[in-house]
Amino acid sequence: MASQAMTPESVDFSKWYNEIVYKADLCDQSPVRGCLIIKPYGYELWEAIKNGLDRRFKATGHQNAYFPLFIPESFLKREAQHVEGFSPELAVVTIAGGKELEEPLIVRPTSETIIMATFKEWIQSYRDLPLLINQWANVVRWELRTRPFLRTTEFLWQEGHTAHASFDEAEAETRQMLDIYADFAVNDAAIPVIKGKKSDREKFAGAMHTYTIEAMMGDMKALQSGTSHNLGQNFAKAFDIKYVDENNEFQHVWTTSWGLSTRMVGAVVMAHGDDKGLRLPPKLAPYQVVIVPIYKNDDERGAVMETVERLAKLLSDAGIRIFVDRRESLSPGFKFNDWEMRGVPVRMEIGPKDIQNNSAALARLDIPGKEGKQFAPQEGIENRLKDLLADIQANMLKQATVFRDANIHDVKSYDELKRVVDQGGWARGWWAGSGDDEGRIKDETGATIRCFPFEQPGGAGNCFFTSAPAERIALFAKAY
Amino acid sequence: MASQAMTPESVDFSKWYNEIVYKADLCDQSPVRGCLIIKPYGYELWEAIKNGLDRRFKATGHQNAYFPLFIPESFLKREAQHVEGFSPELAVVTIAGGKELEEPLIVRPTSETIIMATFKEWIQSYRDLPLLINQWANVVRWELRTRPFLRTTEFLWQEGHTAHASFDEAEAETRQMLDIYADFAVNDAAIPVIKGKKSDREKFAGAMHTYTIEAMMGDMKALQSGTSHNLGQNFAKAFDIKYVDENNEFQHVWTTSWGLSTRMVGAVVMAHGDDKGLRLPPKLAPYQVVIVPIYKNDDERGAVMETVERLAKLLSDAGIRIFVDRRESLSPGFKFNDWEMRGVPVRMEIGPKDIQNNSAALARLDIPGKEGKQFAPQEGIENRLKDLLADIQANMLKQATVFRDANIHDVKSYDELKRVVDQGGWARGWWAGSGDDEGRIKDETGATIRCFPFEQPGGAGNCFFTSAPAERIALFAKAY
Repeated sequence: MASQAMTPESVDFSKWYNEIVYKADLCDQSPVRGCLIIKPYGYELWEAIKNGLDRRFKATGHQNAYFPLFIPESFLKREAQHVEGFSPELAVVTIAGGKELEEPLIVRPTSETIIMATFKEWIQSYRDLPLLINQWANVVRWELRTRPFLRTTEFLWQEGHTAHASFDEAEAETRQMLDIYADFAVNDAAIPVIKGKKSDREKFAGAMHTYTIEAMMGDMKALQSGTSHNLGQNFAKAFDIKYVDENNEFQHVWTTSWGLSTRMVGAVVMAHGDDKGLRLPPKLAPYQVVIVPIYKNDDERGAVMETVERLAKLLSDAGIRIFVDRRESLSPGFKFNDWEMRGVPVRMEIGPKDIQNNSAALARLDIPGKEGKQFAPQEGIENRLKDLLADIQANMLKQATVFRDANIHDVKSYDELKRVVDQGGWARGWWAGSGDDEGRIKDETGATIRCFPFEQPGGAGNCFFTSAPAERIALFAKAY
Repeated sequence: MASQAMTPESVDFSKWYNEIVYKADLCDQSPVRGCLIIKPYGYELWEAIKNGLDRRFKATGHQNAYFPLFIPESFLKREAQHVEGFSPELAVVTIAGGKELEEPLIVRPTSETIIMATFKEWIQSYRDLPLLINQWANVVRWELRTRPFLRTTEFLWQEGHTAHASFDEAEAETRQMLDIYADFAVNDAAIPVIKGKKSDREKFAGAMHTYTIEAMMGDMKALQSGTSHNLGQNFAKAFDIKYVDENNEFQHVWTTSWGLSTRMVGAVVMAHGDDKGLRLPPKLAPYQVVIVPIYKNDDERGAVMETVERLAKLLSDAGIRIFVDRRESLSPGFKFNDWEMRGVPVRMEIGPKDIQNNSAALARLDIPGKEGKQFAPQEGIENRLKDLLADIQANMLKQATVFRDANIHDVKSYDELKRVVDQGGWARGWWAGSGDDEGRIKDETGATIRCFPFEQPGGAGNCFFTSAPAERIALFAKAY
């Protein structure tokens, strides 16, 4: 609940982010290197994200389960690319119960290996397929440079793991889950994401195809916000997961995995925040409406608080998440700033005049100043607020979409890409380069292929880098 | 979905338990020593437990947060009794990111120390109190002997941690949370628990008082199902957590912690199960009603499935958790046994006769055979089922209460206690013995003081063990 001056987003985005996550009480530093404490306000945001996803997972036939935190070292080594990808980041338990372990245990960086070893036991026949499992869990990757929510040593996420009878079914699942992530991002988080495929260079360690949703943050950098992997038969073969098909023949299964993490909290902060602080989309906001009582003396206080408590109950009963700022020692002006900083979508003010007029003042966060302020009759205010919240949700998505679209530029040459990237934008162009070419662009400009968007212009063109004929466009950007 | 013969509960309870948790698909063995895989059916049960508790925590002003999985070794050592209590059970990360760590990290066995180190930062003034935090998390205790859900190396739980301005407030919180656990156990899990206080010998490492809910399992052994600790100022002093009171003076805070774990899944299994398998209380059952279609040929099948799907939608829309057993290759009889084994409270059968009569057959699990079977008109069946589920919930609580009360015996001498304990029952008697006396009884009979029940007969008596004047009765039993 600090009130000190904050670095404006427009001055130093990175500094702004590092300040706002703490000032808005989303998280706190922990005494453990690279690990974050998620404070109640941040955790409620994560719970809203979790609920939004979990509902969608269950509606599409997935079931939650839980697998061990520890993975025997030998398991991780079975899939060659996978172990190569994760080895540098592992935390290892070597002592337990006072004794040195015979085989060290890895704290899971992701659970493909232990889940695949289990799927081998669960799958015998085609009747056992598809097997659609999700896990909500903590995972650990020993990152050298960490940033709150974006990259931490321990983080919370969900990881889906599924097994199928054919490539086509696995591919359909992989795409379905990406669609679910995108649906959540767009409709709940008000973040217009671009769906696409990762280049081979950027795909998951052990995957055939990796699909991603890429979001543009307030500084125009890209944030990979959720990924879905078609693992082909790589893990099925490494873990020998076979089923008997309808012709009584043994086949390896096809598997997928897909994950979305507390990184999404960072995405919400960076996609919507402004100089005044957070701006939370109503569907995810821990408090959708904050009620600030306004009075000058005890007389006024009595009447105001009576109305405030009555309206608070009315709104709460109507299913609106509200918070009444009852703090005595702070001025209304301080409270306005405080809740603007914490990104509550609507502020409701109740003062003596409102008591007289049976009204309340409503200020919407997405439209600053007078333009976003209105007086509403107390009668039926719950419906008025529901409409207002829906309107804010829609408007925030629109604002983020306009911003994004204004900052994606088509490029026809490497020079053009350099200019675009240099100004912080995303560059979109025909691409037929190699992995090494990607590497060179990354080294020289800092930009990577975020994805080959599913939405392609059609036809063909010439690669902006190699001039060779190209069949698809790629999206380049600097990324978190 | 196995159908092999099962050890009857009445023949070998322990063996029955170890078989049923796997056969009913609650869990699976994992390749990691002492760690369990919680399968979807078991995890849904845990989710119902979680939701039931989380709702109650939030209604009493608690907020969820998340703290690091890892605890620096030095933190754990700060509270002397605490480190002594947990040292033998720790899992230790010594290598991370490819390097030996300077200070080893403990995988949390419980989070008092890291949370208290954080509370020190969060608490400055009396205005910051009470601080009411809960965490849903995995914890690790390296147990030598493990049993599914009851004692595993890794388990899932919630741990509440609160700080208060006075002993009285901390004590009230400790008792409130025990009441919440009891309310959940009785009303959601249909397990009649006894609330009471632990003896000094059995209390939590670092606590002033530990309160417990004790439940009687089907073999009459006790299961400690949830505990709430008044930690006094032990942790506040060890971590130097002070606040400025209203007189501007520094005071140490008073803290509490309370936890309930996946052990509750084991409690539900062992409190209600019978020779046929699980019996799940409707409020927690992943499926409250299973619908089994009955037909002999394709003609019948068409009409039956049409009605089944229509009723399935009706019930599902009415908020009843249902499962339609559409498996083609299995007989209705097999399915009946299978769902009885998995403990679904109500089985609904729909056959050709039911189509003719616009009826459905309902079989309740809590009353076996003909007596528990009824035919209900399809019209309004959703309300009939809601009533039936409520009745089953109440009846299961009654059954468990009758069983428990029949197996608690008042004892006036050590010999009487031995006889009671030998027959598996609980012994209740006046107690004024020492911790060493408790130890002797444990060594000689296997029974421990489960608690000093809050409900006391009043007055005073003579200790059944030492004959000294005693002011309270204690409850002795063998326990998990």
